[in-house]
Amino acid sequence: MVKRSKHYRRKFVPGTPPGTLTADHDASPTNIQIMAYGPDSFTEAVLTSVDEIRDYLGKWPNLWINVDGLSNVPAISAIGQMFNLHPLALEDTLNLHQRPKMEDYGDHLFAVCQMVNNSDCSELDFEQVSIFMGKGFVISFQERAGDCWNPIRERIRRGAGKRLRLTGSDYLLYALLDSTIDNFFPAMENFGDHLDSLEDMALGKPGKEVMAQIQNTKRTLYGIRRAVWPLREALTQIAAHEDLMTAETRVFMRDCQDHIIQLLDIIESYRERSSGLVDIYLSSLSNRMNEVMKVLAIITTIFMPLTFIAGIYGMNFENMPELHAKNGYYIIMSAMGVIAVLMIIAFRRIGWLGSIEKS
Amino acid sequence: MVKRSKHYRRKFVPGTPPGTLTADHDASPTNIQIMAYGPDSFTEAVLTSVDEIRDYLGKWPNLWINVDGLSNVPAISAIGQMFNLHPLALEDTLNLHQRPKMEDYGDHLFAVCQMVNNSDCSELDFEQVSIFMGKGFVISFQERAGDCWNPIRERIRRGAGKRLRLTGSDYLLYALLDSTIDNFFPAMENFGDHLDSLEDMALGKPGKEVMAQIQNTKRTLYGIRRAVWPLREALTQIAAHEDLMTAETRVFMRDCQDHIIQLLDIIESYRERSSGLVDIYLSSLSNRMNEVMKVLAIITTIFMPLTFIAGIYGMNFENMPELHAKNGYYIIMSAMGVIAVLMIIAFRRIGWLGSIEKS
Amino acid sequence: MVKRSKHYRRKFVPGTPPGTLTADHDASPTNIQIMAYGPDSFTEAVLTSVDEIRDYLGKWPNLWINVDGLSNVPAISAIGQMFNLHPLALEDTLNLHQRPKMEDYGDHLFAVCQMVNNSDCSELDFEQVSIFMGKGFVISFQERAGDCWNPIRERIRRGAGKRLRLTGSDYLLYALLDSTIDNFFPAMENFGDHLDSLEDMALGKPGKEVMAQIQNTKRTLYGIRRAVWPLREALTQIAAHEDLMTAETRVFMRDCQDHIIQLLDIIESYRERSSGLVDIYLSSLSNRMNEVMKVLAIITTIFMPLTFIAGIYGMNFENMPELHAKNGYYIIMSAMGVIAVLMIIAFRRIGWLGSIEKS
Amino acid sequence: MVKRSKHYRRKFVPGTPPGTLTADHDASPTNIQIMAYGPDSFTEAVLTSVDEIRDYLGKWPNLWINVDGLSNVPAISAIGQMFNLHPLALEDTLNLHQRPKMEDYGDHLFAVCQMVNNSDCSELDFEQVSIFMGKGFVISFQERAGDCWNPIRERIRRGAGKRLRLTGSDYLLYALLDSTIDNFFPAMENFGDHLDSLEDMALGKPGKEVMAQIQNTKRTLYGIRRAVWPLREALTQIAAHEDLMTAETRVFMRDCQDHIIQLLDIIESYRERSSGLVDIYLSSLSNRMNEVMKVLAIITTIFMPLTFIAGIYGMNFENMPELHAKNGYYIIMSAMGVIAVLMIIAFRRIGWLGSIEKS
Amino acid sequence: MVKRSKHYRRKFVPGTPPGTLTADHDASPTNIQIMAYGPDSFTEAVLTSVDEIRDYLGKWPNLWINVDGLSNVPAISAIGQMFNLHPLALEDTLNLHQRPKMEDYGDHLFAVCQMVNNSDCSELDFEQVSIFMGKGFVISFQERAGDCWNPIRERIRRGAGKRLRLTGSDYLLYALLDSTIDNFFPAMENFGDHLDSLEDMALGKPGKEVMAQIQNTKRTLYGIRRAVWPLREALTQIAAHEDLMTAETRVFMRDCQDHIIQLLDIIESYRERSSGLVDIYLSSLSNRMNEVMKVLAIITTIFMPLTFIAGIYGMNFENMPELHAKNGYYIIMSAMGVIAVLMIIAFRRIGWLGSIEKS
Repeated sequence: MVKRSKHYRRKFVPGTPPGTLTADHDASPTNIQIMAYGPDSFTEAVLTSVDEIRDYLGKWPNLWINVDGLSNVPAISAIGQMFNLHPLALEDTLNLHQRPKMEDYGDHLFAVCQMVNNSDCSELDFEQVSIFMGKGFVISFQERAGDCWNPIRERIRRGAGKRLRLTGSDYLLYALLDSTIDNFFPAMENFGDHLDSLEDMALGKPGKEVMAQIQNTKRTLYGIRRAVWPLREALTQIAAHEDLMTAETRVFMRDCQDHIIQLLDIIESYRERSSGLVDIYLSSLSNRMNEVMKVLAIITTIFMPLTFIAGIYGMNFENMPELHAKNGYYIIMSAMGVIAVLMIIAFRRIGWLGSIEKS
Repeated sequence: MVKRSKHYRRKFVPGTPPGTLTADHDASPTNIQIMAYGPDSFTEAVLTSVDEIRDYLGKWPNLWINVDGLSNVPAISAIGQMFNLHPLALEDTLNLHQRPKMEDYGDHLFAVCQMVNNSDCSELDFEQVSIFMGKGFVISFQERAGDCWNPIRERIRRGAGKRLRLTGSDYLLYALLDSTIDNFFPAMENFGDHLDSLEDMALGKPGKEVMAQIQNTKRTLYGIRRAVWPLREALTQIAAHEDLMTAETRVFMRDCQDHIIQLLDIIESYRERSSGLVDIYLSSLSNRMNEVMKVLAIITTIFMPLTFIAGIYGMNFENMPELHAKNGYYIIMSAMGVIAVLMIIAFRRIGWLGSIEKS
Repeated sequence: MVKRSKHYRRKFVPGTPPGTLTADHDASPTNIQIMAYGPDSFTEAVLTSVDEIRDYLGKWPNLWINVDGLSNVPAISAIGQMFNLHPLALEDTLNLHQRPKMEDYGDHLFAVCQMVNNSDCSELDFEQVSIFMGKGFVISFQERAGDCWNPIRERIRRGAGKRLRLTGSDYLLYALLDSTIDNFFPAMENFGDHLDSLEDMALGKPGKEVMAQIQNTKRTLYGIRRAVWPLREALTQIAAHEDLMTAETRVFMRDCQDHIIQLLDIIESYRERSSGLVDIYLSSLSNRMNEVMKVLAIITTIFMPLTFIAGIYGMNFENMPELHAKNGYYIIMSAMGVIAVLMIIAFRRIGWLGSIEKS
Repeated sequence: MVKRSKHYRRKFVPGTPPGTLTADHDASPTNIQIMAYGPDSFTEAVLTSVDEIRDYLGKWPNLWINVDGLSNVPAISAIGQMFNLHPLALEDTLNLHQRPKMEDYGDHLFAVCQMVNNSDCSELDFEQVSIFMGKGFVISFQERAGDCWNPIRERIRRGAGKRLRLTGSDYLLYALLDSTIDNFFPAMENFGDHLDSLEDMALGKPGKEVMAQIQNTKRTLYGIRRAVWPLREALTQIAAHEDLMTAETRVFMRDCQDHIIQLLDIIESYRERSSGLVDIYLSSLSNRMNEVMKVLAIITTIFMPLTFIAGIYGMNFENMPELHAKNGYYIIMSAMGVIAVLMIIAFRRIGWLGSIEKS
Repeated sequence: MVKRSKHYRRKFVPGTPPGTLTADHDASPTNIQIMAYGPDSFTEAVLTSVDEIRDYLGKWPNLWINVDGLSNVPAISAIGQMFNLHPLALEDTLNLHQRPKMEDYGDHLFAVCQMVNNSDCSELDFEQVSIFMGKGFVISFQERAGDCWNPIRERIRRGAGKRLRLTGSDYLLYALLDSTIDNFFPAMENFGDHLDSLEDMALGKPGKEVMAQIQNTKRTLYGIRRAVWPLREALTQIAAHEDLMTAETRVFMRDCQDHIIQLLDIIESYRERSSGLVDIYLSSLSNRMNEVMKVLAIITTIFMPLTFIAGIYGMNFENMPELHAKNGYYIIMSAMGVIAVLMIIAFRRIGWLGSIEKS
C-alpha cells in the first residue's frame, strides 16, 4: 500500500528561485550508462565521468544515456548543459512525485512518468522516470538502479538490421515508454488477486481493520490512476510533435496509447470493485448482527416461558393443588419439554435455526 | 458472471518488440472459410491452405474470408501479407481482451469488437472478433468457431439481386457489425430476468452471499458496458471514412449506431437497477433485524413481569397474608393472565404483532 | 410503474436485413385519418384505403395524415412509397421502444418521440409516435388510437385565418411536438403526488416492500428521463433544418425546447427526491429499531433488579433475619416500588420514555 | 421550505395555441409605475392607464416601466403591442415558474429571473421577474408588489450626473439584475444558520422527522440552484448582445457574473453540507442505538449471574449444607456484592460505562 | 477548521452602486511598502503617504508596491487613480471572500487569490491577496501584515544580475503567485497528518462528535479546493496575455500551473480519503454494536438455562425424588458447571469469544 500522506512531501522551500537544482536528501548514488548504436554497429559503457559522453557525441546515429540515482547534482547539471536541456525540466527531474507529463522545449521533448518496480501489490513501489529526447539522443533519469528496460537493451544489442536499430531516437523513446506502461499489467493482475482476497475477508472475517484495508486499497488505486491517467494526454502530445516524431513511430505511439486506455479500463473496474467491497463489508456486518440477535432471541424465547412456569410452582401459596398431585412434577416437566420442542419447531419453520452458521 | 480478475491476463512479456505475433497458449485450431460473391453469382469453400485464397483474388467483386480459431500463426501471418494488413493490427487480432476500436490504415480499416456467444446471462461468454475491410474484401478473425452470422451467410447465398449482393465490402462490414450488435439484445433480455430474480432474493432471502452476487452482477454489467461503449465512437469513425465508405452504407451505419445507443441505454438502466439492489438488500437486512428484535422485545416484555410476580410469591417471608388466602393462588394466576392479555393487546395496537411475518 | 425488463424486448431476429417491415405481433388495427387544409378551407376524412390519399395530393397546401395502429404493414409501406419515405425510418416506425430522435433524409424529416397516454402515475403509459414532415405534408404514426392532439385538430377546423392554417407543415410539426411535450406536465404533477405519498410511507410504515417501491419509482423516473432527454437535441436538429423550417417556426421551436428543459428540471428534482427517499426510509428503519430496543432495555432494566430481590428472599437459608421480621414483606415490597419509580424517573430524564411512540 | 410538488403546476391546457395570454387564477392586481430620466432631469408616476405611457414615449432618453401583479391581461397585452414585444415572451411573463433565461428578439432582449422576496430561510419566497430591454426603455414585470429595487430608484432620483443617469437602458438592466442577484446573499447567510441548527438537531435529537427535514433542505437548495444556475449563461448572452449592450456596461455585467459564480459556490458548498448531514444523522442514530444496547448489556450482565445465584439457594434440596451454615446468608450476599462491583469495574475498564450519556 | 457559514458574509448592502469603495469594519490598518529595482540597483522604503510613490514613478524599471491592511480607503483609492486601476477591480480588492480570478483591463492585469498564512491544519487561515500588474509595476494588496514573500524580497535585494532583477514586472507577478501557491504545500502535509489522526479516531473512539469532525474536515477541504481550483484557469489567462507577458515568463507560468495541478491532485485524493472516513466510521460503529450484542447474547445464553434449572429445583412439588437424593444438590451443581463449560467452548468455536476486545 502507498504509505499515508508521505507521498506529498516536497523538499524545496517555498520561494526558492525556479530552476534551482537540489538533490533529495536520500537520493541514490548516481550511475551513468551509455548505449550508442546505428543500423550496423553498437557499443555500450558505464561512464565514470560525464565528459566521456563527448567521445560518443556526433559519432553515432543514436545515443541512449541512462542515469540511475539522482544524488550527483553537478553531473546531472553537466549533462543538462551538454544537451542544452531546459533548467525547469531538470528541476522537475530532481523533484520527485511529479505528475506524469510531457513538455515540448522546441529542440527536445521532456517526459516524466512513473515506473512500477515490483508487481507485489501489497507494497506497490513507484519510481519516477524522466526522459529527454532530441535528434539523435535519449537521456533517461531514474530514481534508483533497476528497471524494466533490459529487454530493450537486449534488442539493441542483438537487433542488427531490426527496427529498433534502423530507426531514430523517437522510436527508442516509444520503446521505453511502451515497456514502462506494459510493466503495469502484471502489477494489476496481482492487484486483482489482492481484491479477491479482500472480498473474501469482507464476506467472512469480522474486525474493523477490514474496512481500513479496503480504504487503503481504494487509495492505492487512486494513486495508480494518478500515475497513469495524465500519460494519456502526454502521449498524444508526444505523438503530435512535428519535428521529432516520424510518421512511422506515430503509429506505434497510437498502439501504446491503446495500452494506456486498456490500463485505465482495468483501474476503473478495480475502483468499482473496491467501492462494492464497502457495500459487501457493511452488509456482512449487518448479517452477522442478525445472526447474533437470532441466537439471543431463540434462547430468550425458549427459556423465558419455561423459567416462568418453574417460578409459578416455586410460589409458596398454601392452596396449590398441583403441588400435592402425585405426578404433578412429572406432568409439568413434560409440559415444559413439549413447549421447548414446539418453540424449536416454530423457529425452524421461520428459518431462524437453519440460517445460524458459524459467523 | 465474468470470472474475477482473470479477464486482464496479458500473454506477452513486457518489452517484446511490437508486431510480434504469438498465439495464445489455449487458442482454438484455425479454420478458414471463404465466400466470394457478386451481384449474380457466388461461391463458398472451406480452405485447407491460405494459398487457395489466390484462386479467388481479383476474380470476384467481393471476398469474405472468415478465420475461426487463432492458433495457426503462420497462416494468419500469410493472410496478413497477402492483403498487406498492418502488423500492429494483426498483433491486436491475436491479443485477446482488446477494447473495441476501429483503426484506419489508409487502404484498409481494422475493427475489433466483442461478440456475445450465448444469451444465458449467468455466464455471459464474449468472443473477440477482428475485422479487416478493404476494397473488395472483408477478413474476419474469431477466437472460436460458432458465431451469429449465419443469417448473413444465408442472405449472401440466396440474395441474388438484393442489396447485400449488389453493394461492396463496406456494406458487408456493416452487416457483420450490425448483426454482432443486435446479438447483444437477447442477452440483455435474459440479464433483465436475472436482475428480477436477484431483486426477489434481495427482498426475501437472508445470507451474505446475496450482496456478493449483486456486486458480481454490477461487475458483469461494467464488463458489458466496456464491450459496447467504445463501439459507439468506432462506428462513427468507420462511417466517416471517405474512401472506403459509400454514402449509401453510411445511412445504414447511422442506424447501427442507433442500436448501440439503445443498448447503452439498457445497460445504464440496468446499472441503476443493480445500484438500487444494494439499497434494497441493506434495507431488507434492517427489516429482518427489526423483526427479530420485536420478537425478543415482546417475549421479554410479557414474561419478565410475570416471572417477577411469581418470584414475589416464592419469597419465604413468614408474614405474607396472600399466601394463606384460600384463593390467593387462583387470584394471582388470573391476574397474571390478565397482564399477559393486556400486553398482547398493547403490542397489537402499536402494530408489532401484525408485522412479524416469516422472515 | 413501468413493468420490469419487459421494456426491452425487440421483436426482430438478429441478422434480418435492414429495412424489413414486420408488424409487432400484438399491434393495434390500423386506422388512417387525413386532414387537408389551407388558409381558407379545410377538409377531413377517415380513409378506407391508402389510395384515397391521392385525391388530396397536390390539391391542398397542407396534408396531415395520421395513422393509428401499426398492424397493416402493406398500407404503411404504401404510404412510405407514395411520399418516398426512407425504408430505415419506416422500419423504426414499426419497431417500438425507439429512443426519441430526429433524422434528416434530405427532402423529409423523421422524428420519433414518446407520448404519455395517461396521467395516472401508478402506471405511466407511453406510446411511440413517429412523425414524417416534408414540404406540404405531415404523416404521424401512433401505436394505438387515442392521443393528446384533439385541441390541434380543433384549431385546424376552426382556425380559418389563424396561424396554424396560414403557415406550412413545419408549424404543424411544431404544434404536434409541443402538444406531446406539454402532455407530460400533468403526468409529472401526479407523479409528484405519488412521491409525497411514498415519503409518508417511508417515514411511517414498516415493511420491506417500501424500498422495492422506491426503487420502482426511481426506475420509472429513469424511463421518463430516457423518453424526454434525447428530445432536446432532436428539437435542436429539427429547428436547424434549413430547407424545411421557416425562421418564424424556429422561434416557436425554441419555446418548445424551453418546455423540454423545464420538464427535465422537474425530472431531475424528482430523481433527487427519490434518492432522498432511500435515506429517509433507512433512517426510519433505524429509528424504529431504536424504539424497539428502548422498550426492551426499559423492561429489562426495571424488572431484572426487582426479580433479583425477589430471588434473594426466596432463598432457603435458615438464618435470614429479614424473613422473620413482622413487616419484612411490606418493607421489601415498598423498596421494590421505590426502585421501580426511580428507574422510570431516570428513563424519563434521559428521554427514553418520551420518545417511544406508536411505531 | 419550498412546498412539495406544488411548484410544478402549470396553468395552461396542453394544446393551447402558443402566445395565448391568460392570467394565473390567483394573480395579484396590476399596478404600473413609470420612471423617466435623462442625465439632468427625471420624473416618475403611478399610471392608471397604459395609454399614459405615450406621454413619455420619445420624450425621455430612458423609460423604466415597472408592472407589479399580472392579473390585468389587457393592460399587459397593450404594453406588449406598444413596445412591439414578442407574444411568446409575453406568454412566458404570465406563465410563472419559468426557468431563468434570456432571449434575443432582435430589437429587444427578454430576461426572466427569480427574485428572493425575504431572507427568512425557513420559507424562501421566490417571485418571478421578467424584464424587457430595448433602446431607451426597460419594462419589468413582477408577480407581486414589493421588490429589492428601491436603492436603484433612489439612485435614479438623486443621481443627477452619476453613471445610472448618464448611461442608457442597458445599464439600468444591469443594475436591476445585479440588485436581484445581490439580494440572494442575505438569504444564503440565513440558510447557513439554518444548516447549523439542522446539524445540531442531527447530532442531538432523535426522531425520524429530522431526516425528512434534511431532505427538505436539500430540495430547497436544489430549487435555489435551479433559480440561479441558468442565470449564468443568460448573463453571458446578454453581455454579448452587440446592438443593445455598450462596451462599458459589459464590464459591469462581467462583475455581475462574478457574483453569480460566488453564489453558485455557496450553494454547492451548502449542498455538500446537507449531504454530510445525512451521514451525521445516520451515524448519530447508530451511536444512540449503541448506547441503548450497552445499557441493556450492562444490566443483563450484572443481574443475570446474581439472580442465578439467588436461584441456586432457592432450590429445595434436602442436603444443602450452606443453607444451614450460620453465616451462609451473609457470605452469599457479600459474594454477590463483590461480583457486582467486579462487573462494574470491568465495564468501566472497557469504556462502556463512561460513554453512556444522556441520549 | 473554517468556521461555519461565517465565510459568506458580504458587507455591502444590495443595490449599492458598483465601484463604491468601503472598508470592511474590522479591516487592519494600512501599511504601504515600496521596492524599486532594476538590473543593477534597488531601493526599498515604507511609505507614510501615497504621494511618495511619485518619487519612484518613471525612475525605476520595476516598482513593487505592497499594501498591508485595507482600512485606509482614501490611500487605496489614491493608488488606484495614480495607476489608473479600474474601480470594479479596486472594489473587489476591498471585498473579501472573492473567488480567485484574473481580469484583463487592457493596460493592466488584476489577479485575486488566497494566501495560506499558517500551515496548522486545525485552523487553516486564508488571507485574500489582490495583485495588479502593468508595464513596470506590480501592486499587491493584502488583508493583513505578514506574508510568504520574504524570500522574494531577499532575491530582489541580493539578486543583482539574476533573473528576477533582469526581467520585468511580469516575472515578479509570476514569482509572487508561485510563492503563494507553493505555500499551500506544507499546509497540505499537515492536513494529511490530520486525516491520519482522524482515521485513527474513526477506527477506535466512539462518540458522535467524530462524524461531525469528519464532515468539518470535508468542508475545509472543499474550501481549500475553492481557493485553488479557479487559479488554474486564471493562470492560463494570465500566461496568454499578449502585451504584458513575455515568452520567457510564459514558460515559468506553465511550471506554476503544474504546481497547481499537483495541488489539486492532492486535494482530490484527500477528498476521497475523507469520504472513506465516513465509511470507516460507520462500519466501526456497526462493529462495536456487534461486540455489545455478542456480550449480551453470551451472558444470556449461559445464564438463562442455568437459572431455569435452578428454578426447577426451587419448585415446591411434594413428589420430587431428586430433592431427597443425598447427592442431588451436588449432581445438579456439577451438571450446571458442565453446561456452562460446554456453552463457553461452543462460543469459542464460533469465534464470538475471541473477537470481543476492548471497544
